[in-house]
Amino acid sequence: MTAPTRPAASVRPSVIDGPAALDLRGADLPGHRFVIPAEAPLSLACGIDFGPITIAYQTFGRLNADRSNAILICHALTGDQFVAQTHPVTGKDGWWDLMIGPGKPLDTDRYFLVCANVLGGCMGTTGPRDVDPRTGRPFGLTYPVITIADMVQSQARLIDHLGIQQLFCVIGGSMGAMQVLQWVATYPDRVFAAVPIAGAARHSAQNIAFHEVGRQAIMADPDWCDGDYLSQGKRPHRGLAVARMAAHITYLSETALHRKFGRRLQDRQAVTYGFDADFQVESYLRHQGSVFVDRFDANSYLYITRAMDYFDLAAEHGGSLPQAFRGAKTRFCLVSFTSDWLFPTHESRVTVHALNAVAANVSFVEIKSDKGHDAFLLDEPEVFAVLGGFLNGCAEHRGLRRP
Amino acid sequence: MTAPTRPAASVRPSVIDGPAALDLRGADLPGHRFVIPAEAPLSLACGIDFGPITIAYQTFGRLNADRSNAILICHALTGDQFVAQTHPVTGKDGWWDLMIGPGKPLDTDRYFLVCANVLGGCMGTTGPRDVDPRTGRPFGLTYPVITIADMVQSQARLIDHLGIQQLFCVIGGSMGAMQVLQWVATYPDRVFAAVPIAGAARHSAQNIAFHEVGRQAIMADPDWCDGDYLSQGKRPHRGLAVARMAAHITYLSETALHRKFGRRLQDRQAVTYGFDADFQVESYLRHQGSVFVDRFDANSYLYITRAMDYFDLAAEHGGSLPQAFRGAKTRFCLVSFTSDWLFPTHESRVTVHALNAVAANVSFVEIKSDKGHDAFLLDEPEVFAVLGGFLNGCAEHRGLRRP
Repeated sequence: MTAPTRPAASVRPSVIDGPAALDLRGADLPGHRFVIPAEAPLSLACGIDFGPITIAYQTFGRLNADRSNAILICHALTGDQFVAQTHPVTGKDGWWDLMIGPGKPLDTDRYFLVCANVLGGCMGTTGPRDVDPRTGRPFGLTYPVITIADMVQSQARLIDHLGIQQLFCVIGGSMGAMQVLQWVATYPDRVFAAVPIAGAARHSAQNIAFHEVGRQAIMADPDWCDGDYLSQGKRPHRGLAVARMAAHITYLSETALHRKFGRRLQDRQAVTYGFDADFQVESYLRHQGSVFVDRFDANSYLYITRAMDYFDLAAEHGGSLPQAFRGAKTRFCLVSFTSDWLFPTHESRVTVHALNAVAANVSFVEIKSDKGHDAFLLDEPEVFAVLGGFLNGCAEHRGLRRP
Repeated sequence: MTAPTRPAASVRPSVIDGPAALDLRGADLPGHRFVIPAEAPLSLACGIDFGPITIAYQTFGRLNADRSNAILICHALTGDQFVAQTHPVTGKDGWWDLMIGPGKPLDTDRYFLVCANVLGGCMGTTGPRDVDPRTGRPFGLTYPVITIADMVQSQARLIDHLGIQQLFCVIGGSMGAMQVLQWVATYPDRVFAAVPIAGAARHSAQNIAFHEVGRQAIMADPDWCDGDYLSQGKRPHRGLAVARMAAHITYLSETALHRKFGRRLQDRQAVTYGFDADFQVESYLRHQGSVFVDRFDANSYLYITRAMDYFDLAAEHGGSLPQAFRGAKTRFCLVSFTSDWLFPTHESRVTVHALNAVAANVSFVEIKSDKGHDAFLLDEPEVFAVLGGFLNGCAEHRGLRRP
């Protein structure tokens, strides 16, 4: 055995460092609050009556006199209510800032936009990181397991509170699309138009599998402390970062990864024969994991992924997906992306077929894009054209004045 | 806040339990051993001269008098030399037992089969879990980072030792296919026929990304101990299980997962509103993670995934993949599977085009299968027919007598 020509330390990897936890309390975040009181709790799917619950939400534009121009935007797994303008935690643009503003598809001169942090979230709406008033300690795993229907029920309370009988539109991508479909199924008369983007009427086995990997990564982190990390002054940032890294791959496409990174090296001319991030794609993924733990709560990740896993709209309606939409007068526009392998086009087609089976008013656009699932968040001009056109048409029918 | 109707404990998940580590020493495993001596070390790609190295291998069938009937089988990332008969650790059939035996495509009445545990492995060939004779302690991260070319170089030493000048065939799937291509590139005169199955001439950005997730899962486990877990009497079984779970999804296809599991529940009539394995697919994945840690070393997983990441045959040949095969008289048969998204058909096509560019003797079959990447390990009759036919034809040309 001859001696190595470089010190053994060169193969030591730099693992993801723990971030300085931001630990913004929900109450410290800007924006509106609405409280579902303990006296009128939510009846959750799991059988628990749950309350009080704070719902944190943002609005953009102005509600018109007859309260007919409201659009509810439903966010995805790791999204939040800060859909436009500058995000108060990350300092970046809101996740759909491209889509929102005067003259944009979600035109703030014409529509009144509402976006609420989902039940179980960590941005102001009551979630597992918040204090349980019964115990004075964070809920952790004593938070009830919630469903997409529970999220939608909580949003309906907010919409009641805002004095809105019928939403002009409910729109969202990914888990947001699940909420859109659930809205129509639960409150068919309250949704004039529905835009589920890159979604599905049930979570697939492969998607459940990816979620389970993320959850196991979090639970494998000793700093998760059986879910009680906040009480113990810890955070499972390594496990959460790994969960995010695995999930992030599923949000892109092989083509997008190849175009963005290929096999290019990160700040070096040759591979190092070690476990540092030699490749740009590794560096990018580590960064994604690292910044995510600064803004997201690990238990919220467990609960929200579980809500998605449980989503199966047909199962809620005797195994018949058409039954979920029977009688709905809602105008639908479904959108999918050719390179989305997390919520592929065939999932949207299943929903379209169910809508056709009950003679619903439905249009469906599969948009050619190599950006994968995340295409719905990105600058895809065809998405803007489709959504702008559909919303304009619906606004005419609804009698909303042009700005 | 009304009291939950079930105890909070019901949402406590059962995380993967630590296995009773098998910890079979490589020396305890059955089979043949060959030692590359310290006096004639391997010259690794990283610049290190490395030796002594033990190579653990198995053989099946008999070498003929003119030593012209030898087939080298190259195993995949988590495979090993126990390719046929009963595996001494798992007690199950070897990973290609279906393919091997009298009258099967790899006919032990006609061919002499050799399969060696790869360099860096954990089944008897010197790897990071073995003791460094310089220190008397396990290598851990002082083991040099190896490449596919290093693996092939070590196999060539074994083939020299067996007195075989030219292999009748080199065959393998996945990482095995990488070794097959590297064999022809490095030793074109020593390979009569080559069968790379479900492989690629370079590792894609997406595949590097998935590997990086697995490595980060392992390194995030405190029991990894910066790679020194064996000296400290620990094993990062949780991190390794998560790595395996993430990887396992990539070995299947969405269709296969849907067919095998769909959204069916595991031993229950309804979801539990908790984080137990409600769904069969979750239970299956946890099982895959759990049994894997019984038979595999976490540092080997780091090293072997890294070798795959580094594989880029064109880069080794001035950026020209055809150059890697120029002048080779080898007969090629490439096989891919329609539902394989880890090593999709277009990766095999890249290799075929490069072979065509140098007028190589190449056939290529894309097999229709919904079983994903793992199709090469499973009972796919068309694979058997293709391989049997190709090998028979080559055997005629090589003048091997029929059994």
